[in-house]
Amino acid sequence: MSKDLTKRSENYSQWYNDLVLKADLAENSAVRGCMVIKPYGYSIWEMMQAALDKRFKETGHSNAYFPLFIPKSFFTKEASHVQGFAKECAVVTHYRLKNAEDGSGIIVDEDAKLEEELIVRPTSETIIWHTYRGWIQSYRDLPILVNQWANVVRWEMRTRLFLRTAEFLWQEGHTAHAKADEAIAETEQMLNVYAEFAEKYMAIPVIKGIKTANERFAGAIETYCIEAMMQDGKALQAGTSHFLGQNFAKAFDVKFTGKDGAQDYVWATSWGVSTRLMGALIMTHSDDQGLVLPPKLAPIQVVIVPIYKGEEQLNQINDIAFTLKTALQNKGISVKYDNRDTQRPGFKFAEYELKGVPVRIAIGGRDLENGTLEIARRDTKEKETVSKEGIAERVEKLLIEIQENLYQKALALQNNMTHSANSYDEFKSILETKGGFVYAHWDGTTETELKIKEETKATIRCIPLNNKKEEGKCIYSGKISTQRVLFAKSY
Amino acid sequence: MSKDLTKRSENYSQWYNDLVLKADLAENSAVRGCMVIKPYGYSIWEMMQAALDKRFKETGHSNAYFPLFIPKSFFTKEASHVQGFAKECAVVTHYRLKNAEDGSGIIVDEDAKLEEELIVRPTSETIIWHTYRGWIQSYRDLPILVNQWANVVRWEMRTRLFLRTAEFLWQEGHTAHAKADEAIAETEQMLNVYAEFAEKYMAIPVIKGIKTANERFAGAIETYCIEAMMQDGKALQAGTSHFLGQNFAKAFDVKFTGKDGAQDYVWATSWGVSTRLMGALIMTHSDDQGLVLPPKLAPIQVVIVPIYKGEEQLNQINDIAFTLKTALQNKGISVKYDNRDTQRPGFKFAEYELKGVPVRIAIGGRDLENGTLEIARRDTKEKETVSKEGIAERVEKLLIEIQENLYQKALALQNNMTHSANSYDEFKSILETKGGFVYAHWDGTTETELKIKEETKATIRCIPLNNKKEEGKCIYSGKISTQRVLFAKSY
Repeated sequence: MSKDLTKRSENYSQWYNDLVLKADLAENSAVRGCMVIKPYGYSIWEMMQAALDKRFKETGHSNAYFPLFIPKSFFTKEASHVQGFAKECAVVTHYRLKNAEDGSGIIVDEDAKLEEELIVRPTSETIIWHTYRGWIQSYRDLPILVNQWANVVRWEMRTRLFLRTAEFLWQEGHTAHAKADEAIAETEQMLNVYAEFAEKYMAIPVIKGIKTANERFAGAIETYCIEAMMQDGKALQAGTSHFLGQNFAKAFDVKFTGKDGAQDYVWATSWGVSTRLMGALIMTHSDDQGLVLPPKLAPIQVVIVPIYKGEEQLNQINDIAFTLKTALQNKGISVKYDNRDTQRPGFKFAEYELKGVPVRIAIGGRDLENGTLEIARRDTKEKETVSKEGIAERVEKLLIEIQENLYQKALALQNNMTHSANSYDEFKSILETKGGFVYAHWDGTTETELKIKEETKATIRCIPLNNKKEEGKCIYSGKISTQRVLFAKSY
Repeated sequence: MSKDLTKRSENYSQWYNDLVLKADLAENSAVRGCMVIKPYGYSIWEMMQAALDKRFKETGHSNAYFPLFIPKSFFTKEASHVQGFAKECAVVTHYRLKNAEDGSGIIVDEDAKLEEELIVRPTSETIIWHTYRGWIQSYRDLPILVNQWANVVRWEMRTRLFLRTAEFLWQEGHTAHAKADEAIAETEQMLNVYAEFAEKYMAIPVIKGIKTANERFAGAIETYCIEAMMQDGKALQAGTSHFLGQNFAKAFDVKFTGKDGAQDYVWATSWGVSTRLMGALIMTHSDDQGLVLPPKLAPIQVVIVPIYKGEEQLNQINDIAFTLKTALQNKGISVKYDNRDTQRPGFKFAEYELKGVPVRIAIGGRDLENGTLEIARRDTKEKETVSKEGIAERVEKLLIEIQENLYQKALALQNNMTHSANSYDEFKSILETKGGFVYAHWDGTTETELKIKEETKATIRCIPLNNKKEEGKCIYSGKISTQRVLFAKSY
C-alpha cells in the first residue's frame, strides 16, 4: 500500500480525493457521477446509520419504504418544489430492451414507451404526500412519524466522492401533524438530533441556524440546518430539517377532521442527512498521513500488531494479544489483531494510520521481557510504552479521551476560522486570505445576498439560532440590519 | 378497524391481499407495480435484515454499495445473463426535464439525452464484476466477500404485494475466489445460512436443492435454492445461491496472479433473498383472523391490554402492567402496553390478532382481586388465566414454545402436502386435487420439463440435495431416471 497522499497544504482538494481512494472508502464507478462505496467506507456509514436510527426510534419514528420512481406529473403539483427538484434528474422513459435486428446488440424497445415518464426520486415529498392522503382521515391518524433510508438521484454535473454525487444514500424523515406548532417542534427536535449526532459521534461542532429564503428547500416554509467548518476554511451543510407548512398537504389534498369536526390541511416536516456526512467526517479530522476517525464511528477502534522474530516469539505475543483482544471486546471495544505474516509491522502501521484506527497497540520482543506494550494514538500520534496490567481500562479511557480531543480540536479550528467583518472590504479580505465563517450584517434581501454571492462566492450559510441581536449596517447595501448572519464559501 | 378478511377457503389469493393491506404491511403505490412498505411491514423486514446481516458478518462478509444504474452495454457482456435480465427493465434515457414552452407543464428535455442508456439494476453482477476488475490483481486480494442491501427493479407485468413487484428490496452477496471449490463451498454455505434463517427465524421448513438448467439463474453454472410450501399447496422459492464459475470474470476480464505466478480468471458466487420473504412469512403461518408471526420476527412480541371500569381500576392495572412490561423488557422481550382510552378491549384484541402479536396479556378487575391475568397465544388461540407470580419467566418460555409450534405446524403441513407420483396421470391428479410438492421421476431433459410445465403449470422446483438415488422411469417420457425430482406449482 502506497501512502503518498498529496499534502493538504499543497492541494487540499487532491488530498481529499487521494484519501478517499487510498483509505478504501469509495471510488468512482463506470456510471458518471455514481460512486461505489467500498466495504471500509460503508462500515463507517453503517455505524452512522445505526446511531441515527436509534435516535429516530427513541424519538418515536418508524421506518418505511416508498417507491424509487415518481410520476412526472407529481412534481408539478407543488409550485416551488418543481423548480428546485424536477430539473436535473434521471428520467425513465421505457420499460423494455430488445435485440437489435441487425445483431448489433440490445436496444431500447420503442414499443415499450411509458405513457408518463417516471423520475428517479431526487427526494420523496411528492410520492409520500400522495401516499399519506390515503392514511390520514382524522386527528386520530396523526401524527405520522416516518423515516426512510434510501438512495436518491440528482443529476449533478460536477461530482466529488461523498460530497456531491449523482446517486447518494440518505435518510429522509417525513412527518404529518395536526398543528403547526407540533410540526415546528418536530422540525427543531430533528435539527437537535442531527446536531447532537454531529457533535457527540462525529466530533464535529456545528452551528445551528435557519436558511435564508433563497437557500430554503424548495417547498419549505423554513429550512433549519447545521453547518460545519472544514480544515480548508469552507463550510459544509451537514443536515437540514424543513418545516413544510401545509404546502404539500395542499398540493396533494391531504386533509383531516379535527376533534371539533372541522377539516384542515395537515402540517408537514421533512429532514435528512446523507452520505455527504462521510465527506464532513473525513475533512474535519484527517491529516497528511490519512484518515482520523472518532472512536464512536471507527469500525476498528483498536488494532494490535505483533513485532517478532521467529515463531516462538510470535506464539508468546499471540497469547498476550488474544487475551488482550478478549478483554477489550468484553468492554464493547472493536479490536483487530493483525498477525499476518505477509506484511511487515511498518507496512501495517502505515496502513492503519491511513485508515484512521484510533488506537494502535504494538507488542515486541522487549515487551515480552518487560511485561509492557506500546500504545499509539492516531489523533496526536503520541506513543507510550506502558505496563500491560490494567491495559483494557486504560484503552477504554483513552478512546473517550480521543473522542473528546477530536471534538475540542475541531472546535478550536472552527473558532479560529470564525471572523467578523464590519465592511465589505474587510469581508472580502477575510474570504481571500483566511476563509472560514464570517459574521456580517446583511439587509435581509435576496438581491444583496445574490450580489455578494456573485462577487465573492460566499453564501449565507444560516442565520444562527439564538443569534444575539445587534444593530448594524449591511456590509453591502449599508441598510439597517438587526443581526449578523453567517457567511462562508461552502461545499 | 374492520377485521373482515376474506376466508382462505373462499379465496386464498384475496385473503392474502386483504391481509397485507389490513395488517398494515404494504400497499400499492401510484407507480404501477411498485409498493409502499408500511411501518409495521417494514419493521418485520428490519428484523429479518438484522438477523441475516448478523449471519453474513459472522461468516466473514462486509457490506458495500454499488450504483443503482448499469450502462446498457454491460448486459451484453455475459451472453446468457443478457437473455435473462436485460429485457423487462426500467430504462433511463434522459437526465433533465424542462418547462414546456406552451406552459402546459414539465416535459423531457430532448437535449439531455444520454449517450448510452442506463438500466436500473435488476441485479448487480455486471456492475460489480466491472468494479472487481480494479480490486483484484493477485491471490492476496482474494477472497472478496461482499454483500449489498439494495433496491432492484424488474418490470413485471402482473404484480402482487411482496411476492412479485417491479421494485423490491433485497440483499445480493457477490464473492470472488481463487479456486472453484472455494466458490462452491461459499455457495453452499450461504444456502445453509438461508435455510437456517428460514427454519429458525421464519419457522418455515425448506427443501434445499439445485435448479435444473432451465430454471438456473442467467449466467450461473449451478443455482442452489430453498423451496417452501404455502398453505394453498403452491411452492415458493425463498432464496437462491449461485455458483457462477468464471463466467462473469471472463465477461469482465477479471484475472488474478496465483501464488505460482500463473494467471487465471476469478471464480464467483452470488446469492440473494428479498422482500418476497415477507410473502412467504405471511402465507405460511397466518389464518382467517389475520397475521401470525413467529416470535423471533415479531416487532411486538407481547401486548398487554387493560380491561377496566373507571380511573381507579385503570391506575391499579397500570401499576401491574408497567411492572410486568419492565420485567419482560429486562428479558429482551418487546412489549407494548396499550392503555389507549379511545378504543375498547375487544377492538384491541382484534387489532393485535390481525397484526399477529404472538402473546396477548389481558388484566381485568377480577384479576386485580385474584392476583391473576389472562394469557392468550396467537398461534393456537388458547387462553389461560394464571397467577401473575413468575409471569415473565412463563411468557419467555411461551414465546419459545410458540416459535417451535409454528415450525412444527408448518412442517406437518409441508409433509401433508408432499406426495409421490409414479405415473403422469397420478401426477396430474395430485396437482389437480391436492396440490403441493410432488416427487416424480424425470428424464433430465429440458424438453420434458417444458412440456410438463406447459401441460400442468408445474415446474421442477429443485433436485433436492442429498436426494436418495432410486431407479425409475420418467413420468412423461418413460425414459430411465436415477432419482425423483421435486415438482410443484409455484408463486
